[in-house]
Parts: sequence; C-alpha cells; structure tokens
Amino acid sequence: MEKILELFSQPLKPVNVGLESFLDSMTSQGAEVVAVDWRPPVPGYVELTHTRGGVDIEAANDEALRRINAGRPMLVDMGIARDAIPGYHARLICHAGPPITWERMCGPQRGAVMGAILYEGWADTPEAAAALAASGDIEFAPCHHYHATGPMAGIISPSMPVFVLRNDEFGAAAYATLNEGLGKVLRYGAYGADVIARLKWMEQTLYPALARALSRRGPVDLRSMIAQALHMGDECHNRNKAGTSLFLRAIGPALAETSDGATTAAVLRFMDGNDHFFLNLSMPAMKAMLLPAENIEGCTIVTTMARNGTDFGIRVSGAGQRWFTCESGMPVGLFFPGFTQADANRDIGDSTITETGGIGGFALAGAPAIVQFVGGTPTDALNATLEMYEICAGEHASFTIPALNFRGTPLGIDVRKVMASGLTPRLNTGIAHKEAGVGMVGAGLLTAPLDCFKAAFAALTAL
Amino acid sequence: MEKILELFSQPLKPVNVGLESFLDSMTSQGAEVVAVDWRPPVPGYVELTHTRGGVDIEAANDEALRRINAGRPMLVDMGIARDAIPGYHARLICHAGPPITWERMCGPQRGAVMGAILYEGWADTPEAAAALAASGDIEFAPCHHYHATGPMAGIISPSMPVFVLRNDEFGAAAYATLNEGLGKVLRYGAYGADVIARLKWMEQTLYPALARALSRRGPVDLRSMIAQALHMGDECHNRNKAGTSLFLRAIGPALAETSDGATTAAVLRFMDGNDHFFLNLSMPAMKAMLLPAENIEGCTIVTTMARNGTDFGIRVSGAGQRWFTCESGMPVGLFFPGFTQADANRDIGDSTITETGGIGGFALAGAPAIVQFVGGTPTDALNATLEMYEICAGEHASFTIPALNFRGTPLGIDVRKVMASGLTPRLNTGIAHKEAGVGMVGAGLLTAPLDCFKAAFAALTAL
Repeated sequence: MEKILELFSQPLKPVNVGLESFLDSMTSQGAEVVAVDWRPPVPGYVELTHTRGGVDIEAANDEALRRINAGRPMLVDMGIARDAIPGYHARLICHAGPPITWERMCGPQRGAVMGAILYEGWADTPEAAAALAASGDIEFAPCHHYHATGPMAGIISPSMPVFVLRNDEFGAAAYATLNEGLGKVLRYGAYGADVIARLKWMEQTLYPALARALSRRGPVDLRSMIAQALHMGDECHNRNKAGTSLFLRAIGPALAETSDGATTAAVLRFMDGNDHFFLNLSMPAMKAMLLPAENIEGCTIVTTMARNGTDFGIRVSGAGQRWFTCESGMPVGLFFPGFTQADANRDIGDSTITETGGIGGFALAGAPAIVQFVGGTPTDALNATLEMYEICAGEHASFTIPALNFRGTPLGIDVRKVMASGLTPRLNTGIAHKEAGVGMVGAGLLTAPLDCFKAAFAALTAL
Repeated sequence: MEKILELFSQPLKPVNVGLESFLDSMTSQGAEVVAVDWRPPVPGYVELTHTRGGVDIEAANDEALRRINAGRPMLVDMGIARDAIPGYHARLICHAGPPITWERMCGPQRGAVMGAILYEGWADTPEAAAALAASGDIEFAPCHHYHATGPMAGIISPSMPVFVLRNDEFGAAAYATLNEGLGKVLRYGAYGADVIARLKWMEQTLYPALARALSRRGPVDLRSMIAQALHMGDECHNRNKAGTSLFLRAIGPALAETSDGATTAAVLRFMDGNDHFFLNLSMPAMKAMLLPAENIEGCTIVTTMARNGTDFGIRVSGAGQRWFTCESGMPVGLFFPGFTQADANRDIGDSTITETGGIGGFALAGAPAIVQFVGGTPTDALNATLEMYEICAGEHASFTIPALNFRGTPLGIDVRKVMASGLTPRLNTGIAHKEAGVGMVGAGLLTAPLDCFKAAFAALTAL
C-alpha cells in the first residue's frame, strides 16, 4: 500500500517514448521531457521505517525538515579565523571535505595549503611550505568540524578573514572565508605571489571595509537574499551573479558611509568583478540551516556532503558526526582555453553544502543560463531538479522555482530513497587543475558516488 | 507552397487535447502547454507580398530586422531636457502615447502635467496648474516626436534631467527621464509636495552625481546589460530587478570616486530602493534600436506602440511617422491593498517600446517570477512569448531566453501577421489610478487593441 501511495505521490512528467526528432523539437521549445529511467533498488536496500530501537524514521525526517525550513541564517559579523571561529588555534589549517592527511591530499589541496603557509609567513618558499606541511607541525582538520565551509580546496588558515553567520532560532553559527574570484586563486590550488598579494589585500582592505559597513548596516538576511537570487537565475552554487548583485546593493550604501571614496570604489570593483563572491555567503548560510538537523535519532537525511579532492564524504543525521567516505568522482564540463578533461582533479570542495541544503544542483531548474558555464542544456537543468525530488524527503519552504510554478526546491536527501532508486545527488562544481599551483581550469557537472550512501545505509540499518 | 513552408517553419509545441487534470499536472511541472487557439484572419486581411509600387515586403522587413539587431544603444551622457533634447523649448511638455489635447487627457496624465507645472514653478497650486495647462500657453507633444520615451503618463518638462543614449551605428539618439520609483509618483499622476520634492532631489542631487560618475566611467553598453538581465529573470518592462542591480554595479565605483560618501550612499540607496530604476534605461535603449527601422519603404513592421491613457497608437515603418490610433485597453492585474479594478485607468505609457523591440511582454518566458507582480502563471508567461513568435517577423540576435534553449526573443511585430492571426501584442504594464493625484494602484497584463492594426494594414495595402 505504501508503495502505491509512493507511486502516485511522484510528480507527473511528460515522457518521450517517440522519435528523437520529436524529443528535440519539444526540448528546443524548453518543454520538460524526462527519459524513462527506472532503476532497480541498490543491492543492500531493505525497506526501513523504524530504527531497531523503534524510532519512527518518517517522524525523525519530518523534524529535520522542520528545523531546516525554520532556520534563518543572518550575516551578523566578520572576524579573523583564529579569533572568530570557536576552538581555532594558531597552527590549525582547515580544509574542504572529510578528514585527510597531507600524504593523501590531492594536488590543488596541497597547493592551497602551501599558499596558506606562505600567506601566514610560516615559510618563504613553496618547497619549505610543503616540507612544513609534511612535518606534522601543522594540524589539519575539516572545515565542517568547525562549522565552517570552504569552496574547492577549502583552506582556512588562522589569519584569514571570515564571515560570521548566525541561525538564532537554533543558536547555530557558521563561517566561511571571502571569495577570491576565479582563475589563479588559492582555493583552486594556486599559490603564486599574485595569489598571496590578493589575499593580503582582502585581509587588510576588503575585510575591514566590509566589516565596518556590516556593523553600520546591521545583519543581512541571507535566506531572503538566496530566495530572491533563485528567482533571478542563480542556483547559488556555480551561478551567483544575482546573489552577488543583491549583496553589493545591500552593503553598498553603508560601505560608502564608512570608507573613503577610493576604498569604497576598490571594494565595489572587486565584488563587481567576481560574480561568485556570493558563494562564500550561500555556503555558510546552508551550513547554518543544516546544523540544527544534525544528530536527530533515526533521521536518514544527509546533513553534510563534502569532497577533499581525494575522498567524497557524507554525514547522516541519525548517524551523528561519523563520515561515510569513498573515492571522489570526476566532474565533466567546460574547460578554459588551453585546458582539457585530462587536467581535471577529482571533485573537490565543501560547496556541495548547497545541494545538501536544497539549492545548487538541486535548483538547476531555476538557473537555465548556468549551462553556458557548466555544460548541458536548459532541459538537462530542469530534469536535474525534477530527478532530485525522487531522493529528497521534502521541499524547501523558502527557496522556490518560478518555472515550476514556485514549487519548493528538493530538500533533505534521504539515504533510503537514494538506495531505493539508485539515484544519487546531482552536483555542479568548479574544476581545479590536478597539479598544485595551477588553479581553475573549468566548471562542470557530476553525480555523487553511490558507495558512501551504501555505507551510510548499512550503518543506519544497524541503529 | 509558401503556406506549406510557413506551416512547417512554425515552432512545434505539445498541445493538450486531453483531461484538464493532465494539463494541470503538466503545467504544475512547468511544462510548456499551448491550448489549441486557431483564429480566422481578421476581416480586411489580404495576402500582401509587395507594395503597389512593387517593393518586396519580406526584403523590407528583413532590412528592418537587420538594422534593429545591428543596433548598439549606449548610455553616453545625461543632461537637462531643454538643453539635451534637440528641438526642446521652454514651454514644451512631452507626454506618453500618440498626440492628445489637454481636454482629452486621462486623469493620471493630467495629474502628471499639473505636477510638472508645479515642479517648473509655473504655478503655485494644482488648480492654477490645471488652468495654465488648459490655457493653450503650453505646447503638448508626444515624447516619441522628440525620440524620447516616457513611462506611464510619460511627462517630460524642460527642467527634468534625462539620460542620453546613442546608437552610433545609425547615428540615432534617444532620451528618457530618471525613474522615480513606485507608488505616489508623477508618472502615475500624483503631484503632491512629496512628489515634487523627490523630483527636485533627483534634479539637484541624483542627476549631477550620476552624470559625474558616468563621465568618469565612460559609456554603458545597455544592449549587453539587457541581454544579461534577460538571463536573470527580468523582461525589462515590469521586472527590472536584475537590470537595476547590473546598472548599480556598473556605476557604483565611479560614483564613489566622484561624490562624497553621503551622496554616494544616498544615490545607491535610492537606486537600491527602486527595482524599476532600470526601466528608464531599457525604454530609451529600445527606442534607440528601433529608430533606424523607421521609414523603410514597404516595411510592415511596427516601430512604435504607445498609449496616452485615452488612445492606443502605433506607427509602422512603411507608413512613416503617421499614427494609427484607437481606444486604449483596460489592464487586468494585481492591485495594491485598498484598490480594485474599478480604480484602474486605461492602459497608458510609452513603455510598450519594450514589446515593440522584442522584450517586455514578448520576453515573459524568461521572467516567470514576474507573475507575482502582474498576475497569471509561469505557464501563461511561457505561452505569451511562444504566441508572439506567430506575429513577429524574426527573432532577436542579442536578447535570448535560456528556458527556450537560448532562442532569440520574438522581434518585429508584422502588421500582416497580426491581421492573418487576429493575435495582437501581449503587453504587461503598471496600472495608474484613473483620477489625477492618486498614483500607482497595481500592475497587470493585457493585449493591444486590434483596431489600430486594422487601420495600419489598410494604409499599407494602399501604398
């Protein structure tokens, strides 16, 4: 009976079973077409409604959705990592993804660590920086262990400025560095003098100016800003043109009132020159909304998806803080001139916190123009969102897709539904060069690897 | 044979001939569905391929499309109307729509004229202003006769600051005032002290600051900005949230370099507080692109659609500067609290220059979120654009719709196709209170009246 209800509760979609040419003619008109793509459950799947202890999983998942939807992430402050992030210390470097040692780090993450060591002044040359990183003198930990999120390599070092977000309904706080832009930047593994000089300017000019403006203006409601950006063609992961515009609009007047004209102009130019500036606000906003959904007994919803460029890791609410990991996937996409798929590093970054929270790849239907950056077609983008409803526990109350009649985005990846369908989360991502020191080479799409969901499901069935 | 080619050259669309519930289920998923809606040609329609003088109409229309698509409207300067607009004089008030006398002006247009007279200091009271307007001492003329465009009442008086645009490929120039915002504003017929005070601030603070910033920054490419805004959920008529953001981003740094902090903050706050600020840039941009398409022998493409709140008027390239007019329609839409359809004035404003140029109501498919402002559903918005392809001569080369696989927007209303299909242009518009002095009461949708197209077609067949 439950299966029948499940069947009829699924969204109806026109299905093309006819001529390719008819499919093309429909898709060329932007029609939504989904190929028949039924998959058997994943080996190891069993129907799971209660924990061994008798906890009702649906009820636990509903509570998780309630908490996420009730969350209101506000940008309230800025600070320096070592002071602003609880538990931070002078020899700690945080990185994207699940825990990893220097020995197993991929090229771009190593490059970013070396760059951070040069930026901190702990070494004078890349070689010395690499030696220090390998010496055991520096502690490495996932950003997520400090409620922070780092795009791509995701490196945070003690002197870096960070945004401070609060989700006061639940007393949650989240953090992220400021976005450097695209190309040869630290988070893509570059560590040249120009990269370090930009980071210093961000620390000494951009950060204090934004911090002054923020304290003059007061907190910025990022849930509202993300909701607006989703109605302006962003999915807030790889397309943040609207979000960046709205943040610039929100902070601009107070910036002009608290900085001299030249500084105001320089800060506005920097933000205007980087349509991805808002990514480092949408990521911690999602983190602040997801934190209250962690550690709910019996809950099968994913609370973290993150990659360090070597491993892909997830954490599931009912399984607490444990990481379930497997090899990270290989993104396929569009490359900058002079680079090819062969230059690509494996999938990397904490930015999948956006998909975990119901935006990014899950909101592609609202961002058709993104295909010019990550590849695919607008119909693929529409179908990606429709497919994600099949593995999610619910829909977002605040984040909606106008093109789907303002339907809420797919929210709350249910490990059970991943196992039942064999469908894994759709991700879109930037692509880093696999070698340290090069930087960004493109952007693309992929799906999360199934193995970490299998492992998580096995653990959940044992609870 | 030509008819057969015509048939097969039409875009294919899924057509719902089944259960309403199936239609609903598809539309609820954002699928494109078009109801079967064939209409017989309008009485008076005859197939028209050449003028009596033997001019090939298709070739003439192709030339018009070529000129529109080759146009590149740039914001190059700002000035005061009396100095910046060629032929302007000290007792001239320009208005939206086709020519009209004070006696026949609707309430909001009269209110705006009275407000302009108070703003100019030609009278001290609304009564005295109305008496002066009726005295014959002031010349009234359409904005379009001076290559200007005015939203809603569209009033321009000699002291008002204007944007100056150039389309250098064709030596064309176009003009528009600065957008005041929504609610109780002059262009919606309000003339209270607050309205006049805002206009004075715009003249004395906003205009000089923007003019300084623009001369520091250099010309702004509005074709590029509109193309980007169309990928960010704007249709650039009633939704200009992205365009306003992009313009603010473009001008902000130079503004901070050329004004003191308090002025920069005030100007940024004013623009941030008015998501429609960009409308007064998208309108003259369309005018600058359409001007080179005027007066082409044998061309059946509409070069102007404008309303004065009493009459709806169009001009067609092959018929020169002649206006074809009929009674203006009544918009149906969403109203601000306390107002109803009974308060609405007839359709008013030059803003239909956006639809004439291929955006606005013709680009609704790219702006599904606009239905929250003007009414209807995202599917209606998609279908509005698809329907407009049926009456247009071509597609825009620069303005595209991501959701339609980046298809160009419908461009160049062909009076012949309007007559052959009975379909008239889809418009979206703000709604003014029918009485002078009140202001904006809502926003809505409507279609252009058929009679002026009938009159234009009759004139074209006589050429």
